[in-house]
Amino acid sequence: MTIRHSFRNDYSEGAHENILKSLFETNLSQQDGYGEDDYCIEASRFIKEKIGNTDADVHYTSGGTQANLIVISSILRPYESVISASTGHINIHEAGSIEAKGHRISVAESEDGKLTPSMVKSVLDVHEDEHMVKPGMVYISNSTEIGTIYKKDELKSLYEYCSENGLYLFMDGARLGSAIESRESDLEFSDIAKYTDVFYIGGTKNGALLGEAIVITNDDLKKYFRYSLKQNGALLAKGRIIGVQFLELFKDGLFEKNAVHANEMAFKISDAIAELGYGFLGTPSSNQIFPILPNELIGKLSEKYLFYIWSKQEEDTSAIRIVTSWATPVEAVEEFIEDIGEIKEMLR
Amino acid sequence: MTIRHSFRNDYSEGAHENILKSLFETNLSQQDGYGEDDYCIEASRFIKEKIGNTDADVHYTSGGTQANLIVISSILRPYESVISASTGHINIHEAGSIEAKGHRISVAESEDGKLTPSMVKSVLDVHEDEHMVKPGMVYISNSTEIGTIYKKDELKSLYEYCSENGLYLFMDGARLGSAIESRESDLEFSDIAKYTDVFYIGGTKNGALLGEAIVITNDDLKKYFRYSLKQNGALLAKGRIIGVQFLELFKDGLFEKNAVHANEMAFKISDAIAELGYGFLGTPSSNQIFPILPNELIGKLSEKYLFYIWSKQEEDTSAIRIVTSWATPVEAVEEFIEDIGEIKEMLR
Amino acid sequence: MTIRHSFRNDYSEGAHENILKSLFETNLSQQDGYGEDDYCIEASRFIKEKIGNTDADVHYTSGGTQANLIVISSILRPYESVISASTGHINIHEAGSIEAKGHRISVAESEDGKLTPSMVKSVLDVHEDEHMVKPGMVYISNSTEIGTIYKKDELKSLYEYCSENGLYLFMDGARLGSAIESRESDLEFSDIAKYTDVFYIGGTKNGALLGEAIVITNDDLKKYFRYSLKQNGALLAKGRIIGVQFLELFKDGLFEKNAVHANEMAFKISDAIAELGYGFLGTPSSNQIFPILPNELIGKLSEKYLFYIWSKQEEDTSAIRIVTSWATPVEAVEEFIEDIGEIKEMLR
Amino acid sequence: MTIRHSFRNDYSEGAHENILKSLFETNLSQQDGYGEDDYCIEASRFIKEKIGNTDADVHYTSGGTQANLIVISSILRPYESVISASTGHINIHEAGSIEAKGHRISVAESEDGKLTPSMVKSVLDVHEDEHMVKPGMVYISNSTEIGTIYKKDELKSLYEYCSENGLYLFMDGARLGSAIESRESDLEFSDIAKYTDVFYIGGTKNGALLGEAIVITNDDLKKYFRYSLKQNGALLAKGRIIGVQFLELFKDGLFEKNAVHANEMAFKISDAIAELGYGFLGTPSSNQIFPILPNELIGKLSEKYLFYIWSKQEEDTSAIRIVTSWATPVEAVEEFIEDIGEIKEMLR
Repeated sequence: MTIRHSFRNDYSEGAHENILKSLFETNLSQQDGYGEDDYCIEASRFIKEKIGNTDADVHYTSGGTQANLIVISSILRPYESVISASTGHINIHEAGSIEAKGHRISVAESEDGKLTPSMVKSVLDVHEDEHMVKPGMVYISNSTEIGTIYKKDELKSLYEYCSENGLYLFMDGARLGSAIESRESDLEFSDIAKYTDVFYIGGTKNGALLGEAIVITNDDLKKYFRYSLKQNGALLAKGRIIGVQFLELFKDGLFEKNAVHANEMAFKISDAIAELGYGFLGTPSSNQIFPILPNELIGKLSEKYLFYIWSKQEEDTSAIRIVTSWATPVEAVEEFIEDIGEIKEMLR
Repeated sequence: MTIRHSFRNDYSEGAHENILKSLFETNLSQQDGYGEDDYCIEASRFIKEKIGNTDADVHYTSGGTQANLIVISSILRPYESVISASTGHINIHEAGSIEAKGHRISVAESEDGKLTPSMVKSVLDVHEDEHMVKPGMVYISNSTEIGTIYKKDELKSLYEYCSENGLYLFMDGARLGSAIESRESDLEFSDIAKYTDVFYIGGTKNGALLGEAIVITNDDLKKYFRYSLKQNGALLAKGRIIGVQFLELFKDGLFEKNAVHANEMAFKISDAIAELGYGFLGTPSSNQIFPILPNELIGKLSEKYLFYIWSKQEEDTSAIRIVTSWATPVEAVEEFIEDIGEIKEMLR
Repeated sequence: MTIRHSFRNDYSEGAHENILKSLFETNLSQQDGYGEDDYCIEASRFIKEKIGNTDADVHYTSGGTQANLIVISSILRPYESVISASTGHINIHEAGSIEAKGHRISVAESEDGKLTPSMVKSVLDVHEDEHMVKPGMVYISNSTEIGTIYKKDELKSLYEYCSENGLYLFMDGARLGSAIESRESDLEFSDIAKYTDVFYIGGTKNGALLGEAIVITNDDLKKYFRYSLKQNGALLAKGRIIGVQFLELFKDGLFEKNAVHANEMAFKISDAIAELGYGFLGTPSSNQIFPILPNELIGKLSEKYLFYIWSKQEEDTSAIRIVTSWATPVEAVEEFIEDIGEIKEMLR
Repeated sequence: MTIRHSFRNDYSEGAHENILKSLFETNLSQQDGYGEDDYCIEASRFIKEKIGNTDADVHYTSGGTQANLIVISSILRPYESVISASTGHINIHEAGSIEAKGHRISVAESEDGKLTPSMVKSVLDVHEDEHMVKPGMVYISNSTEIGTIYKKDELKSLYEYCSENGLYLFMDGARLGSAIESRESDLEFSDIAKYTDVFYIGGTKNGALLGEAIVITNDDLKKYFRYSLKQNGALLAKGRIIGVQFLELFKDGLFEKNAVHANEMAFKISDAIAELGYGFLGTPSSNQIFPILPNELIGKLSEKYLFYIWSKQEEDTSAIRIVTSWATPVEAVEEFIEDIGEIKEMLR
């Protein structure tokens, strides 16, 4: 039997059709390089409008690891560390990129992938003097690496705690679309602009070929940021190709539309699985869900679908990770749900 | 009067039409991420065939600065420096990216942008002991930042000198297409593979939206290279978008075709200018040419065309830089030539 | 009441008298700089003899953090990490110096401050691919930061595990004297030379004004080490001052004599405290001991002696840290013991 | 014939007798570690008094390369460079230590080892945008690496230029004693404190065993400096040993006395050589002088004295470097002078 569909991740396909079309249409226009083209400028205007902060600075990188390492290293002094949840992408899956820029990651253990003021405080409490690093900023992801999302009051209180304690707050938004458009979310773009010092909006996982938009709202962090981009190889000669894409995403709601679709597909699956009587790791909140299923069922399912087995649970059950995207076909989702039901029946 | 055409650089437009089409066609195929998709694998196969070395390793980055900083920092030990011509891109126009990775650039003065064994020797001669850095590799560009190109025997003798002196040789090929296809060139891809330890093939400036292909031929430099890519933010989640492009460029000669066109447009211009009795900085050899023209003529010309004024020459003449590309329209070139002739007449 | 004595650490006093005398005697001899003087050369000869490995390379630094950061950064490739116990000095008390050199510390939780093959394996097991750092070496301390020591078979099996798994083993010997001379120890200098790839012998905490001797036994790690020393500011113009001291320490047993004294003072205290019926964190093994005493007793004791309160234990008891050194006067120790007895009586 | 005396450098001997005595006297006093001992505190008080700025911060390192790399990397942002004369110690003889901290050195060619506002301006002029590094500070040495010294008005105008152009000014004072006490100098300590943002006072080359005192006068640069010291391995556990030495140097004029002696010995030699009719590279101004002598004379002289041959001059003459110190015996100087006279006679 061949594989019907991969739910492994949200970057398995190319880009939303409108984006490709726009690349075609703008292709022969002669433009300035390095992010100073008309499309970047226009896209940034739309983004600033969307977040309700026309003083913000917007910059583009080709990927999330690049965005993270540049933002973090542009903010910290050499002896400063960044506080991250133990599950934070920078703490595990970026090959030591933050340390390679000279900075320690001060880890706070987190069950649900999120940070709270008290977790941050517990890190500060054990950093007393110059024999240790000095935490200088806090890194969070929304949605997190395990699919959870920040509520407005959670983000607000974290931001306030950071401000009071001399820490900048940076949000990794590789999957920000899905977080904001979640049915569990009460956060809007304007809240994120208000309650962080800098964040980035992920394009790659929400319908672009590539590209993340870094948004800096804190004036202290704005100056000379393009030097950091250049020094780390992030200024593309044809910066236009990210500009064109973000323009397409933000000029009339494609960004939200893509995220809404990804979430709908995820919730369709999680609702169906719940109805079959199975539970989840955490509450399904975004385009990554973690159903806990019998191992036998998982075995059967994996003959037709690709997904990651996340962690053992009971003796005979495991959590799997299902990721949907702007490109996930409804038909594949419906077939997937049907197949789970049938396999369940079969295994009785 | 509006601007008719920009000759400022070779990254003013998007991508060759075939590349955009290919992105469209492959768009919905589900693929593995981070450069392990079918297109990257297939593109690398074509590249290895082209250079006549199936044992080579091929990797992709999104831009040239990124390629340079990753290759160089993956090779050098902390106390080692890279030797570069004074005109080398890494020495001036990459915002200290090499130093940011911890390495000094040991500069050899060069008039024509190229390095010779004796220039390299003169650098080695002044590095005596552990109070100074230890040169560990040599960086060259082909074509160079000022449009010149390496001949086969020049590259061969430089490579041999490097090998004998414990130096790796790395060629920055941001404009490799134009160099190889130059009417002045006797170099082929296979020579470059033979006479360097690692080089990269520039896609961005030869018809791609973005992307450079790093080719490692020296076994010592192959292992764990993907760690360096990841750590520096170069592994794109949708690595496929570079794979698709290089596949299109290398599967049936588009790479060469693009370069040939760029060179033809440049030579058309330089031949015409020579005929008008004007000289050049260096011999026009690739898609960057540097005609020396009367300042008055330059003034007039700049009302209709964009280009950089490179350097003052005599009292009333300057060198300008004209860059052509795969996208430069023949009509624009013909009009440009005609206009120079007319302005010359007019200014008599 | 004034403070009678500080047991806070083993670097509260200057240097052993013989060392100061030797500095006086050699003072006006004209010598080469940067560690190429007669004293450094002679001291290295004695050290190599002592460890039974005349092919070893010996280098000197002014302190332990400097030794650690230079050794580790000279060994690792940019994407590699160093494995350390959670209690490791580099992991907590060196202000992010390893990360500042670009490397992540991969932490293994350890109760007793030591690492075992299975702890190292558990770190390797979670580092799968290029999205994570690649562990390249193991860092251990002997004696550890909490006073424990490695037995010969423990070190041997750790070294063998490391060798089989492509990891270099580095021992931080800031308190190596006390470890080797411990009554609990069966390790000799020759074992350490055999079962590590590189280690350093601490002078500062064993009778010198300053200075640590790095001993490299693995040939792979020897070449160009002086470049790393210079680049990190460790080559002292008057390198002789460390040479003179290590010569004095190693020419006829002063190094061991100092360590024996420190240990004897510690054991004298721990034996007396045990006799009074109190317990310890771990088994007292070196010049750092951690008696668990009633808080009331600690309060009284701290009016006359300086020491650190290490950790709360029961409701009304705490562990304190007592550190002795080559300079600890027997009289101070005896008075301290007597005082504890008296306070205990008084508080009944 | 054996060597009578070495004039190779000013760190061939140990320390001034008073310093050794003071180390003896203070040896058994129990002190806090890491530069928080009574001697460091007291020494800093004397230094602040001497420079007439009681708000300055004073810190100690074990050597000059360490002082340079810490000061410079603590000031610069990642994309910033330090401007140095081509002859600057950091530019040549510190093994790439500045680059290893991530920063480029922007070089200004200098004939006499000094920088002027116009030289600095010429560097600023070629740094236009974010494709290049951004110069953030200026590094000068006094006395310079070739023995020249800054006059008060030269320093003042350089400082004013730097302030107006957003550049910090840092003076490397490895040989500051000899510079200040030069008969050519009109600079005092208070001028240096006024016309730099940070400088260091060299102990190693002016009578100490080791140690440099970093003096920070600009408030912007003071905070968290101890973190930088610790992170780079510069906080000695027994920081007292530098404190004791600087206390001895500054409590009643030993620092000046040592420098005066070094200069007197140099001038004694240069005056005698001038009288014999020979010239110099530059004007003899400090404890490094560069007489130009016949090669034959140099050959004879080198049988009895050690010194470096600096550079070829005419066909049959060369410049040699003669360095004197606090420890240079008058007798050796007199004999040296006599010998030159005799050899000159002999060679007629």
